Amino acid sequence: MALIRGLLRRGIDLMDMASEFLQPQEDDVARIAWNLRKKISEYQKSFSVIEKCTKPVIAAIHNGCIGVGVDLVTACDIRYCSQDAYFQVKEVDVGLATDMGTLQRLPNIIGNRSLVNELAFTARKMMSDEALSSGLVSRVFPDKSSLLNAAFGLATEIASKSPIAVQGTKVNLVYSRDHSVQESLDYMATWNMRMLQTEDIMKSAQAVLQKTSLKDITSSKL
Amino acid sequence: MALIRGLLRRGIDLMDMASEFLQPQEDDVARIAWNLRKKISEYQKSFSVIEKCTKPVIAAIHNGCIGVGVDLVTACDIRYCSQDAYFQVKEVDVGLATDMGTLQRLPNIIGNRSLVNELAFTARKMMSDEALSSGLVSRVFPDKSSLLNAAFGLATEIASKSPIAVQGTKVNLVYSRDHSVQESLDYMATWNMRMLQTEDIMKSAQAVLQKTSLKDITSSKL
Amino acid sequence: MALIRGLLRRGIDLMDMASEFLQPQEDDVARIAWNLRKKISEYQKSFSVIEKCTKPVIAAIHNGCIGVGVDLVTACDIRYCSQDAYFQVKEVDVGLATDMGTLQRLPNIIGNRSLVNELAFTARKMMSDEALSSGLVSRVFPDKSSLLNAAFGLATEIASKSPIAVQGTKVNLVYSRDHSVQESLDYMATWNMRMLQTEDIMKSAQAVLQKTSLKDITSSKL
Amino acid sequence: MALIRGLLRRGIDLMDMASEFLQPQEDDVARIAWNLRKKISEYQKSFSVIEKCTKPVIAAIHNGCIGVGVDLVTACDIRYCSQDAYFQVKEVDVGLATDMGTLQRLPNIIGNRSLVNELAFTARKMMSDEALSSGLVSRVFPDKSSLLNAAFGLATEIASKSPIAVQGTKVNLVYSRDHSVQESLDYMATWNMRMLQTEDIMKSAQAVLQKTSLKDITSSKL
Amino acid sequence: MALIRGLLRRGIDLMDMASEFLQPQEDDVARIAWNLRKKISEYQKSFSVIEKCTKPVIAAIHNGCIGVGVDLVTACDIRYCSQDAYFQVKEVDVGLATDMGTLQRLPNIIGNRSLVNELAFTARKMMSDEALSSGLVSRVFPDKSSLLNAAFGLATEIASKSPIAVQGTKVNLVYSRDHSVQESLDYMATWNMRMLQTEDIMKSAQAVLQKTSLKDITSSKL
Amino acid sequence: MALIRGLLRRGIDLMDMASEFLQPQEDDVARIAWNLRKKISEYQKSFSVIEKCTKPVIAAIHNGCIGVGVDLVTACDIRYCSQDAYFQVKEVDVGLATDMGTLQRLPNIIGNRSLVNELAFTARKMMSDEALSSGLVSRVFPDKSSLLNAAFGLATEIASKSPIAVQGTKVNLVYSRDHSVQESLDYMATWNMRMLQTEDIMKSAQAVLQKTSLKDITSSKL
Repeated sequence: MALIRGLLRRGIDLMDMASEFLQPQEDDVARIAWNLRKKISEYQKSFSVIEKCTKPVIAAIHNGCIGVGVDLVTACDIRYCSQDAYFQVKEVDVGLATDMGTLQRLPNIIGNRSLVNELAFTARKMMSDEALSSGLVSRVFPDKSSLLNAAFGLATEIASKSPIAVQGTKVNLVYSRDHSVQESLDYMATWNMRMLQTEDIMKSAQAVLQKTSLKDITSSKL
Repeated sequence: MALIRGLLRRGIDLMDMASEFLQPQEDDVARIAWNLRKKISEYQKSFSVIEKCTKPVIAAIHNGCIGVGVDLVTACDIRYCSQDAYFQVKEVDVGLATDMGTLQRLPNIIGNRSLVNELAFTARKMMSDEALSSGLVSRVFPDKSSLLNAAFGLATEIASKSPIAVQGTKVNLVYSRDHSVQESLDYMATWNMRMLQTEDIMKSAQAVLQKTSLKDITSSKL
Repeated sequence: MALIRGLLRRGIDLMDMASEFLQPQEDDVARIAWNLRKKISEYQKSFSVIEKCTKPVIAAIHNGCIGVGVDLVTACDIRYCSQDAYFQVKEVDVGLATDMGTLQRLPNIIGNRSLVNELAFTARKMMSDEALSSGLVSRVFPDKSSLLNAAFGLATEIASKSPIAVQGTKVNLVYSRDHSVQESLDYMATWNMRMLQTEDIMKSAQAVLQKTSLKDITSSKL
Repeated sequence: MALIRGLLRRGIDLMDMASEFLQPQEDDVARIAWNLRKKISEYQKSFSVIEKCTKPVIAAIHNGCIGVGVDLVTACDIRYCSQDAYFQVKEVDVGLATDMGTLQRLPNIIGNRSLVNELAFTARKMMSDEALSSGLVSRVFPDKSSLLNAAFGLATEIASKSPIAVQGTKVNLVYSRDHSVQESLDYMATWNMRMLQTEDIMKSAQAVLQKTSLKDITSSKL
Repeated sequence: MALIRGLLRRGIDLMDMASEFLQPQEDDVARIAWNLRKKISEYQKSFSVIEKCTKPVIAAIHNGCIGVGVDLVTACDIRYCSQDAYFQVKEVDVGLATDMGTLQRLPNIIGNRSLVNELAFTARKMMSDEALSSGLVSRVFPDKSSLLNAAFGLATEIASKSPIAVQGTKVNLVYSRDHSVQESLDYMATWNMRMLQTEDIMKSAQAVLQKTSLKDITSSKL
Repeated sequence: MALIRGLLRRGIDLMDMASEFLQPQEDDVARIAWNLRKKISEYQKSFSVIEKCTKPVIAAIHNGCIGVGVDLVTACDIRYCSQDAYFQVKEVDVGLATDMGTLQRLPNIIGNRSLVNELAFTARKMMSDEALSSGLVSRVFPDKSSLLNAAFGLATEIASKSPIAVQGTKVNLVYSRDHSVQESLDYMATWNMRMLQTEDIMKSAQAVLQKTSLKDITSSKL
């Protein structure tokens, strides 16, 4: 259960990253573009691994989450933040259409496209209360300490459950985001034709019959 | 106008359903999996018929809506609930990635993906106020009786309108969920090239010209 | 930066438009349908140009936004409204499944599908506060005058930024709505392999190094 | 292993089927269209079951294969014909765009789109040699008797193989027709994560080690 | 029924077209790219209108069909050529990945992807016999005069049939190329729910009953 | 320009690979399946890199190309073979639906789906002449030596051309296989908005003007 923090305290320095992109080693414009495309793809992959990782990833955000910070947290599964957190799709201010995932994932995770567009076109700050009401985060905490407690508590709880169930759930949630409902149901059935026979379900069934707590079941690692 | 109730009062007993899945009649693991896939698909279809039904389906939910209860209500078109309602994606607690539709439909119908993931990974209860603010239900009522009145009232109102208009609307809403905007517009134009000539529109046009109420128009059944 | 207003004060007269559709010039039913499909497509395109326009389009809505008014504002990028605004998917009341874009775009822009369905099946009014909480608009203003001030202010602010950044952002936001995250990232990388070398970024980088304000940068037109 | 014959000897009488479509029971044009759509879908399904059937379906065609006959054989997996066979997409001659599957499946199964279009626009006969060279059939036989022998022989041979392997192959071949290569590979991996452990593979491995013939392995039914 | 000829006798002069692309009016590389993308899209549309045109388009090709000539004929519905015709995807020879449609359409219309790739990577000539055996053309004629006779004859024959049938066929053939079989069947059913009631079918039915020739039916224009 | 040979002389020993799959290290069936899925995906990727490689890959096949050999050559761009070559989708014979790419790619590269199905269901050998007529290979050579000469000659020729043109062509050919024509055209325009300004095109234009041979242009590496 990964927990990403430090990186988010302040956005990765845009200018640092830019320098790599802005000093091409090639003469021909097409060859420069070819190499830039490769580099952008590599950077994108460094965020996409978060959603390819089958274990749920929780982002605990306090203070400013800016630029690539937003790219990063939108690739996570669950977002908690503290009262003092704010979010800023900053790239438009430096002449750049952001290309590390925000434009691709943000509209999928919050339920107000007018707001998504407004944030991306203006680079204005969105404070924690708007982040909650718009659905970017699912909970807000008074300060950093209670935020981290809650995030670690959540991680511990999820880690106590059957990894077959938890990770199968993540794989299928990511799948259904990008496919029609019918296709996703078909994939789910094909997935579970096997997973339904896990010993984890057997153990749960026995616990229910023996009226012992589901919390006491131990699942082996995945 | 279907109205689903009793089933939702408490989730279908997971263990009942599980027993069918957990006692295979076959020896070979591949043949067991083959048959399980068939059974899962059949169960899925029993929920998908709700969205294939061209008439709008209203779910009126009070008290606990658990496990397959959530699969069921996410396949409905409109969700109302009472104050005492709560929702629980319970399956992860018994070692199972839920496979009857919740993972496929829930992210499409509420505007907070962080919350969807949190619910699916933790099996925590979501109370009626969060169900409203997150967009799972569109109205909350003080008690079961006012809930049912409202749901029946809504059903009666929709039933009073042109079935060509209402059911054509449902077909195209379900279609646009799974297709690009451009494809959905094309489908809509192809749909209405015919439906625009219905006598129901003619009757409405006449009512407007004669300044009589649109409520007094009677549409024939579909 | 377009700003659409007058049209929205009251919905285009449905009956006006209907008359064009309801008086076919042909005898054969198939030929009538063929021509109707053409006309519907043309009308649809008059709304789709708003999202094909690479410049952001802001809708400032006061008073009733009805029928095709809703088709229109859902095709815009950002929606602001005044306190007295209300929204009504009116078509079902005249026997018609609305076909100019509402059924295709509305579910993508607000985070409560139960509400979308309810509005489309009942034609009930949605007032400005529900429009805000459901995510149809991103801000509500006390009156028409403050609304217009805010909308023009927003337009001015967006217009002051690099058009390469702003319009590249819009193109990719519209693209990602209709494609999987992976496909959209690929498109984004292919897009920016070129755009990253714009002088607008260079100017921004220099401004940062020289500690001058980003606001003072002038970008050439696009 | 189904074997479809009689039906193909001469196309289903178009006029018979047409009469069902041409005598509507309704007054309103929209309601007539609604019911026609239902009927067309039902007819389509009677052909689509052939590709939903997980067992391979072989079409043995002699003499004329006309109209819905073509809809039928294009839904089959393997097509053999005799020298005297000919194929005719006849519908255009009676004022109809064929709607039972030919326009949807034929371009997928033969490698000459210019020819597909020519056949569909002109209703001209395609003789058996052109059917072979264009890829509509995979073998041509001198007469009906040798055709049937070959088709039954093929059916017997396929039936002698592991049904887990054969039917898993069909499911994935149909899947890959409608999906990108990457999606189809993912589906295949999810499919085989289970099927690879079938006893049928174990038996084959043992036969190889013991140098006995693979033909002597008996698989249990599916 | 369009018939395209002169243009194909020799490919549009690549250098002519290139000059428009190679002399940008802008300074900033991003703005140059932005304008180039617009121009490429416009050129692409000048070929795509051929497949948007609902009437079948026949290409009659003699002598060299080179570069954009190939873009053009791959957008047509039926391709006939004379013995002396040859085809050349020439762009790679001048440092250019061809971008007017050949890479997008050619693999869909001929059944040998190894050959498609070979042609696109080497710019080698493909003579008329290979064009026929690979499926690029559906017929080859000894000389230009017999070619034109055949193409005009084909156009006349198609023009004699019901335009509702012919053009509905084209719309659905183009649709099914880009969609899954199931989606295309659904579209077809929605299309024909209306078109099945055309008077053209009625006339055909009567002709069959009265044993008069289908050739004598006159359909009104579309 | 890669050239794959040795591997194809005889198919990778199925039993070798199987042993890795057939001896799971886990107890729980779900965990075994989870790990098998990972392994299958890894194997699939070892073939998919061939199509991700932007340089064209030529397969020169002599003698038997069996099982994973077919998976391998179908992932290549161009296929040449010698007279003595034969192809066999062998997996069905050992109880296995082949899962390394044949079922996903073969139907896209040859124009006879009846034949694809027949090969996959029966595991029968396809000889070189049928491989040519069906479109699996684009040329057949009398023996191994002439085959290799031709393959190396082809590689040399392609290598002499602009890598911007050649590799941009491959990227867009692979893209268009998995997308609609309209989407692929849009991607192509976005691609070339940059690549059109390569110095390679400039050099070609100059060569044409100066009437020197295109063969004499030297492009820098990519």
